[in-house]
Amino acid sequence: MTRRHLLGAVAASAFAQPAPPRVNADRLRDHIERLSVFGRPAGGGFSDGVSRIAYSDADIAGRAYVVSLMEAAGLSPRTDAAGNILGHRAGSDESLPPVLFGSHIDSVPKGGNFDGDLGSLAAIEVIQTLNESQLATRRPLEVVIWSNEEGYAFNNGLVGSRAAAGRLDAGELDVVWNGMKKSDAIRRIGGAPERIAEARRAPGSFACYLELHIEQGGTLDRAGIPIGVVEGIVSIDRYDVEVRGFANHAGTTPMPERQDALVAASYLTVAVNEMVRREPGRQVGTVGQLDVTPNAPNIVPGLVRMVIELRDLSSAKLAALGEQVRTRAREIAAQTKTEIAIRQAAHHDPALATPEVQKSIEAACARLGLRTQRLPSGAGHDAQAMALLGPMGMIFVPSVGGISHSPKEFTRWEDCARGADVLCQTVLDRAAT
Amino acid sequence: MTRRHLLGAVAASAFAQPAPPRVNADRLRDHIERLSVFGRPAGGGFSDGVSRIAYSDADIAGRAYVVSLMEAAGLSPRTDAAGNILGHRAGSDESLPPVLFGSHIDSVPKGGNFDGDLGSLAAIEVIQTLNESQLATRRPLEVVIWSNEEGYAFNNGLVGSRAAAGRLDAGELDVVWNGMKKSDAIRRIGGAPERIAEARRAPGSFACYLELHIEQGGTLDRAGIPIGVVEGIVSIDRYDVEVRGFANHAGTTPMPERQDALVAASYLTVAVNEMVRREPGRQVGTVGQLDVTPNAPNIVPGLVRMVIELRDLSSAKLAALGEQVRTRAREIAAQTKTEIAIRQAAHHDPALATPEVQKSIEAACARLGLRTQRLPSGAGHDAQAMALLGPMGMIFVPSVGGISHSPKEFTRWEDCARGADVLCQTVLDRAAT
Repeated sequence: MTRRHLLGAVAASAFAQPAPPRVNADRLRDHIERLSVFGRPAGGGFSDGVSRIAYSDADIAGRAYVVSLMEAAGLSPRTDAAGNILGHRAGSDESLPPVLFGSHIDSVPKGGNFDGDLGSLAAIEVIQTLNESQLATRRPLEVVIWSNEEGYAFNNGLVGSRAAAGRLDAGELDVVWNGMKKSDAIRRIGGAPERIAEARRAPGSFACYLELHIEQGGTLDRAGIPIGVVEGIVSIDRYDVEVRGFANHAGTTPMPERQDALVAASYLTVAVNEMVRREPGRQVGTVGQLDVTPNAPNIVPGLVRMVIELRDLSSAKLAALGEQVRTRAREIAAQTKTEIAIRQAAHHDPALATPEVQKSIEAACARLGLRTQRLPSGAGHDAQAMALLGPMGMIFVPSVGGISHSPKEFTRWEDCARGADVLCQTVLDRAAT
Repeated sequence: MTRRHLLGAVAASAFAQPAPPRVNADRLRDHIERLSVFGRPAGGGFSDGVSRIAYSDADIAGRAYVVSLMEAAGLSPRTDAAGNILGHRAGSDESLPPVLFGSHIDSVPKGGNFDGDLGSLAAIEVIQTLNESQLATRRPLEVVIWSNEEGYAFNNGLVGSRAAAGRLDAGELDVVWNGMKKSDAIRRIGGAPERIAEARRAPGSFACYLELHIEQGGTLDRAGIPIGVVEGIVSIDRYDVEVRGFANHAGTTPMPERQDALVAASYLTVAVNEMVRREPGRQVGTVGQLDVTPNAPNIVPGLVRMVIELRDLSSAKLAALGEQVRTRAREIAAQTKTEIAIRQAAHHDPALATPEVQKSIEAACARLGLRTQRLPSGAGHDAQAMALLGPMGMIFVPSVGGISHSPKEFTRWEDCARGADVLCQTVLDRAAT
């Protein structure tokens, strides 16, 4: 039955409308729990979170588990040159571009078991549900598990989806992190860096890209609304900062003669926080990583490396904030007799969700009797890379207490299942067009 | 010849005065250079400094080398229960308490090759010089290499000398650092923690304690004076600080809802710096160690551990500064919605050098034709623990550029030899009394 046909039936009679397929909530939960053991802290449980850094042994083990689930769902998974895992379900018209949907399974250190995992395992669950309901689709379906979304490894994320969008940086594969070259890391998970261009997808090569994800903020949870319809994904600017002072004895170096890199870095951390709060709007700014050298109680710090991250829907606002940071850093360097070098390490453009796809998600929710709210995504997602190639939409489910990137990250199991149901219905809708 | 005899001869005729013995400057340099390889960075040279953390393999290797030098000097070295290395040279009257002198050979991470090493190897060089000059002393001489002076390991220094002074903290041997218990660490270097009380020395058990050390500040170097006569060693207060916020996603957590431990820690680091500078006087205050958890660019930091260190000749001033820090920390915690716990980890009393010993050092310098300047020590030294038990004096030599606790730490070789000559002459003076 085509989508047009179905809509006609709905219009003709509510009674004639087939019940929307429902995912197997217990199986989805079971898969999330089983995936959680890969990267779990030693001796811990599900609620102790996960450290499944991209390219790590835990990531490789988790990927193998996901591949086994895709095989069980008949998806014949393959790994592309960028290390993305892809699975195909035939449509009745294989000449049409597929509906593409999925997420990622890598995590930040000490992260939670829903960020990425839910969208990945729900995508596979949708296929299983359609298989079991013997529901065919006009368009083919394609499930994707993107590699290194978080970007903790190599300090630059969305690697798999950027490779698919042709947006890897020049020389990016040669970057070294923790003694490992990125090309070797990609090879480690089954990719083929020497053929990375083959992972690239042409614009229009999919009908639309859909991603279910936890909100990671507290908006839906506070409002008691089960489904968020994402309007767009914020722009992210990331800066690597190196503060050079001079390491010296903490007892014998008079205060006026010090070149204390940590004092300078502290002024800058405070400045970033105050500067971001001062502006009206919803922008955020964070110093999340900071390392002191030599880091001993009785030595004036000689070197600090830190990362500043700024996010907003407006790239222009971020650029202006970046300029403010540079200006303030120059003042702090002069005042503390240090040198502060600021290098932009990453920039992600904002990505607006396609209005038509947003409406599809809302229609799916209406059919399922679920209330919705439109909202922006403060977190970056692979969907923003896919938005460069075609229509894109994202479905959010509530994060309890707005907690994410933490072992305390949690989404109620019924909300996980609701999100997967909405994904399933939206996939059916888009695959029928 | 007794000291009294010698002084009589000096008074009678300057021509009759025997030339002061001179150490072998080349041998002293050779020993400093040979010791520097233990803890040297891979592939580095002498000017790349040293990381010879107490109880480490490098420390153990360095200690073995020093033991071999003491054996060569006829000192029959032994290791006491606290891991201090001691060597004895007989006096003509063995019933008298000895003159005790030495220093330490452990270092901070990325430290220099003169801090502690000079005083340790010069002490052995003094014995060699007396042996070769066939100079007997009335009092016995005792050379000591103290264990864990720096206190990078276990965040609390002067371990060997505090054990000798009976000033270990209750439960100190049970403290765990880097997965190692302090008692096991002491055992690792040949100590016997279960018999630690045997390392204790009675008040009056030595005639005086002498220590040659690099200044580690820039006073002598700026003034062009070869020898500093230490007036006293500053008091040190060290605080362990734990800032507890809440780790959360850096993109989705609005600024007003954050509990950012690093922002709080940065306000506190700035506050310590400004508060210490504001007061008149020569006090110093440092945040030298700071660790962020989970330390990822896209996570609001949930936890920061940092160490605050305050130093001044006045303990009362330090206590008042400590109170200011606690008050400011309470304000910062309230303002940032974090919890800040401050625990005093160490306190070292100030220690005044004995006036009579200072005069002996100045008399030695006068005989050697060396200019002197009195000055306080901003750095802590084992001498402060020894000052609890008997007369104490310290000899400083210039640190080029005032640089210490850094690979760039350097003292001109001729200044090393001058300091050793002054130590030798002062030892002879005090051993004759």
